[in-house]
Amino acid sequence: MKRSEEFYNLMNKRRSVRTFSSEPVPMDVIKNIVNTAGTAPSGAHTEPWTFVVVTSMDVKQKIRAIIEEEEEINYKKRMGKVWTTDLKPLRTTWIKEYLTEAPCLILLFKQMYSFREDNKKKLHYYNEQSTSIAGGFLLTAIHYAGLVSLTSTPLNSGPALRALLGRPSSEKLTLLFPVGYPSKDCLVPDLERKPVDQIMVEV
Amino acid sequence: MKRSEEFYNLMNKRRSVRTFSSEPVPMDVIKNIVNTAGTAPSGAHTEPWTFVVVTSMDVKQKIRAIIEEEEEINYKKRMGKVWTTDLKPLRTTWIKEYLTEAPCLILLFKQMYSFREDNKKKLHYYNEQSTSIAGGFLLTAIHYAGLVSLTSTPLNSGPALRALLGRPSSEKLTLLFPVGYPSKDCLVPDLERKPVDQIMVEV
Repeated sequence: MKRSEEFYNLMNKRRSVRTFSSEPVPMDVIKNIVNTAGTAPSGAHTEPWTFVVVTSMDVKQKIRAIIEEEEEINYKKRMGKVWTTDLKPLRTTWIKEYLTEAPCLILLFKQMYSFREDNKKKLHYYNEQSTSIAGGFLLTAIHYAGLVSLTSTPLNSGPALRALLGRPSSEKLTLLFPVGYPSKDCLVPDLERKPVDQIMVEV
Repeated sequence: MKRSEEFYNLMNKRRSVRTFSSEPVPMDVIKNIVNTAGTAPSGAHTEPWTFVVVTSMDVKQKIRAIIEEEEEINYKKRMGKVWTTDLKPLRTTWIKEYLTEAPCLILLFKQMYSFREDNKKKLHYYNEQSTSIAGGFLLTAIHYAGLVSLTSTPLNSGPALRALLGRPSSEKLTLLFPVGYPSKDCLVPDLERKPVDQIMVEV
């Protein structure tokens, strides 16, 4: 009981952060966080995930250019009024400064298949769900370590990012997490969470 | 650094468990675990998840009957040799004793949309990914509290389970987790996890 409450209180302090300090994060901490994500369960134990950790400013700038170009089209053309209205409380735009400000970006790719030793294709069952669950483990580990992040889904930028980072065609970008410390003047939207009786049903 | 290592060491002890003791879990612990899952991020803060917590033996038996009927067809007909061979190391069959043995089942439904106060449909962006990420939070909370679970995806049983539990058609079953303590004679398959250099790429 005490343990379950302690973990809830800790995780309840987590917020998605959009402005980062440039203070670097030790690579050993990143490795522990990625290793923790790797303890997630996966369909038939296929472990269908690749975590690409980017700390090079040059590569971060290239990633930002790709994403902002697509996002500008998303906001201005592809997405309707409903979508942009729904996003208003979050005050997001297509300008993504966090992509170069954060000391580290973690790009999570799902592996749709791999190859066995005999070169036969090995299917990765439930790779979408497994990879997102591992993303959940990654976020709890980031928060437990005293770092902050933002869960993002770079719409339509997946193929260009995959090419930039040299990942094989068996992989698809699922999620992108900037990781670091919050900036001094960091603001987060004043959102409330649903109480337990709105998300839980007892039978 | 110490914190990130501590959490990795703790989470690395997690294993998927398939045989449960019938010892009940206090509902307050379950509530803390579900609340922790509810701290997960979601697309445009839609919190598109419903956690149905089943402790009634009668309902657990009905759930088991639905799933075993579908699973027998999955194993015998729907799925090919590759799938059943891939599952062999896990020694799973269509008999799912854990569905009635575990004191508690948590069925995680994704909400594809909801209704605003003015009765207009509110779309839930990325509800699949958000719900699976919340499933990741749920699993870390279960493990942190000293409990065990199994991540399962009841193939083709979703609609019947949705009807049994009276969930609306805007919801779809994503994951099912039995939760409890391991049985005394509990065995887990001897699986290894990929080392960090196989899941992480530095750029």
